[in-house]
Amino acid sequence: MLPISHRGQLMPPSPIRKLVPFAEAAKRKGIKVYHLNIGQPDIETPHHVLDAVRHSDFKVLEYSHSAGNESYRRKLVEYYKSVGININYTDIIITTGGSEAILFGFMSCLDAGDEVIIPEPFYANYNGFAVAADVKVIPVTSTIESGFALPPISAIEEKITPRTKAIVICNPNNPTGYLYSREELETLKAVIKKHNLYLFADEAYREFCYSGEHFSAMKLEGVDDHIVLMDTISKRYSACGARIGAFVTKNKKLLDTAMKFAQARLSPPSFGQIAGEAALDLPADYFDATKAEYTSRRDTLVERLNAMPGVFCPNPGGAFYAMAKLPIEDSDHFCQWLLESFSYNNQTLMLAPATGFYGTEGLGKQEVRLAYVLNVEALNKAMDCLDKALKQYNEVILRPKSVMNP
Amino acid sequence: MLPISHRGQLMPPSPIRKLVPFAEAAKRKGIKVYHLNIGQPDIETPHHVLDAVRHSDFKVLEYSHSAGNESYRRKLVEYYKSVGININYTDIIITTGGSEAILFGFMSCLDAGDEVIIPEPFYANYNGFAVAADVKVIPVTSTIESGFALPPISAIEEKITPRTKAIVICNPNNPTGYLYSREELETLKAVIKKHNLYLFADEAYREFCYSGEHFSAMKLEGVDDHIVLMDTISKRYSACGARIGAFVTKNKKLLDTAMKFAQARLSPPSFGQIAGEAALDLPADYFDATKAEYTSRRDTLVERLNAMPGVFCPNPGGAFYAMAKLPIEDSDHFCQWLLESFSYNNQTLMLAPATGFYGTEGLGKQEVRLAYVLNVEALNKAMDCLDKALKQYNEVILRPKSVMNP
Repeated sequence: MLPISHRGQLMPPSPIRKLVPFAEAAKRKGIKVYHLNIGQPDIETPHHVLDAVRHSDFKVLEYSHSAGNESYRRKLVEYYKSVGININYTDIIITTGGSEAILFGFMSCLDAGDEVIIPEPFYANYNGFAVAADVKVIPVTSTIESGFALPPISAIEEKITPRTKAIVICNPNNPTGYLYSREELETLKAVIKKHNLYLFADEAYREFCYSGEHFSAMKLEGVDDHIVLMDTISKRYSACGARIGAFVTKNKKLLDTAMKFAQARLSPPSFGQIAGEAALDLPADYFDATKAEYTSRRDTLVERLNAMPGVFCPNPGGAFYAMAKLPIEDSDHFCQWLLESFSYNNQTLMLAPATGFYGTEGLGKQEVRLAYVLNVEALNKAMDCLDKALKQYNEVILRPKSVMNP
Repeated sequence: MLPISHRGQLMPPSPIRKLVPFAEAAKRKGIKVYHLNIGQPDIETPHHVLDAVRHSDFKVLEYSHSAGNESYRRKLVEYYKSVGININYTDIIITTGGSEAILFGFMSCLDAGDEVIIPEPFYANYNGFAVAADVKVIPVTSTIESGFALPPISAIEEKITPRTKAIVICNPNNPTGYLYSREELETLKAVIKKHNLYLFADEAYREFCYSGEHFSAMKLEGVDDHIVLMDTISKRYSACGARIGAFVTKNKKLLDTAMKFAQARLSPPSFGQIAGEAALDLPADYFDATKAEYTSRRDTLVERLNAMPGVFCPNPGGAFYAMAKLPIEDSDHFCQWLLESFSYNNQTLMLAPATGFYGTEGLGKQEVRLAYVLNVEALNKAMDCLDKALKQYNEVILRPKSVMNP
């Protein structure tokens, strides 16, 4: 038998995709499944962006510069300026999705056994990149009762060891939708300054803020060398398939290091770069309609959830996710049951169990993540299903416990 | 001062790109530079491939399946069948370039400190992926005198330790152009069977064989679990910018492991997959014209090189690279000098010093790699330059040694 690497064995499978076979089976039975489990927006990619690719005119589909096309990076500088972030085009490496920006950050700043602190619940794929880079994720718990605000500074500092090299923050947050305040960012600044740490800021959802203004980590003063912005066009322009992100830092030595990883993989996708560059020509009010749409979806979802007995959903300030606490004991079992054993008017819904977003074993068993990537009408139907489902689950499943857990 | 990771410091910069500033300076002086240093083919990307992207018709640029579109994988099965490789579509993960296939292989099969044996000279970026995965590259030397044939089995076995997990072979080879014979593959099969090792077969240049038939590692019988094919459309269809490759193995457990790394980065580029799928509709004789073109370039290059005093260039059987031994003592110095201090009729050429392709310190100082990615006329002009340059270099540089090396 040939050995699989230890890290390959440690590598977590996608916590969401494990439910996919159950969703497929439900569909085969003719049941309509509302997908609130995924971060794939249903908003159309702007025509202008797709047209730029369709009208591209070249003879050879060449490698680009390893840091991405200079024209694109120069134009990105203008975009960042428009949101109050002042950088030079040489501070940017275009990456293959935000994913690669995260990997470059882990690889360039942390060695095997080093630690990165991340408020939990967090984007599950951070685990994957941590395993790939052989670094340890140290979760610091934020709670649904506080709306998933930044844990107190003492809780963060408690986790710091000599192996701690960085803190990761996703703002607005996936999976909680929490929008960190300027004060919270300033708190983090104090921590990274005091303990000489990097702050990796995943701002994939920057343009999706509904309550309050986004305050980028790049705006923190006097800590330029500490900050790495990990960005992506995936959600911003509904362009997930372009696989275009960015690794941005004013730390020259760090950028030079990340650049070596970028050179090894040659270049980011060329078509995606054309799409990304074209997106920067969208009118300034482009996000207004999108934001209005997401705001109304959020309002619908949160209101419907909180109206259900025993359900609590804090109002998310950004992104397109909400976390809800349900009157259940095992979110993995419940989400599977929704697909396997439940339907209402021949419909059901797919949710992401929150357990996959927590680093601490045992947390998230009463919580689920809901992505509001469907229109209000579909959301309402999905909420009708959830309402019925919770009643039925608690009657049928929870009562005869001895039958369920023989 | 914030620390850069040890692996980030170890990460080798691109051995080719370090000469780029000298090439740019030469161009600013008005000197024409013939680029024989890079693996970017000048052959046009087939219209049909670019048109498929241009005519793509969808509303949302979505994530694809993490393993790539099923339609593309199913069609790839037919392509592989046409070259004698029998696989199922579930044996394939579409990757972001061949680069990612290599990284997935290293990550899934090797742990920190494990060793991978690679005949040197080898594709320099293997070093980068090895550093990223924290594994050791153990070179086993092939020599220009033998035309870079596979080193004897005894030399390979000498390098095997309990930490050895895999052998990498690039066939046809970058940088040597060497085409491994069926017998050499059978030799490798005996080694991997006896020592329970993986064989990673990088077959990026499969379609570029001029002397003899390509024998894929996937055709080796009775060692299915040992073989990983690392593939890419970059060179095959002059589609480097698509960033589409493939990780192929019949080892189910290994594929499931690599799939977890694939899920973490979500999906390969969508536009590139459209290009890759369209390429599979090209007529069966598509490669004939390309092969005829490369054969004539190779013949020109090899003949011109061997006609120069003190130069030896073995005839490469495949890919579009040749390695030449020059009458010089320091290929890095010579390649820089060509750009910095030499011109003939206001022209010069850029070559890749072979030192970057060897893992053993000190090897390759008399060798350079030439990529024949220019047409015959340009190649002839470049060879005129090299001929003059070697004469001048040896007169001007080598004679007054005390002046050069104070």
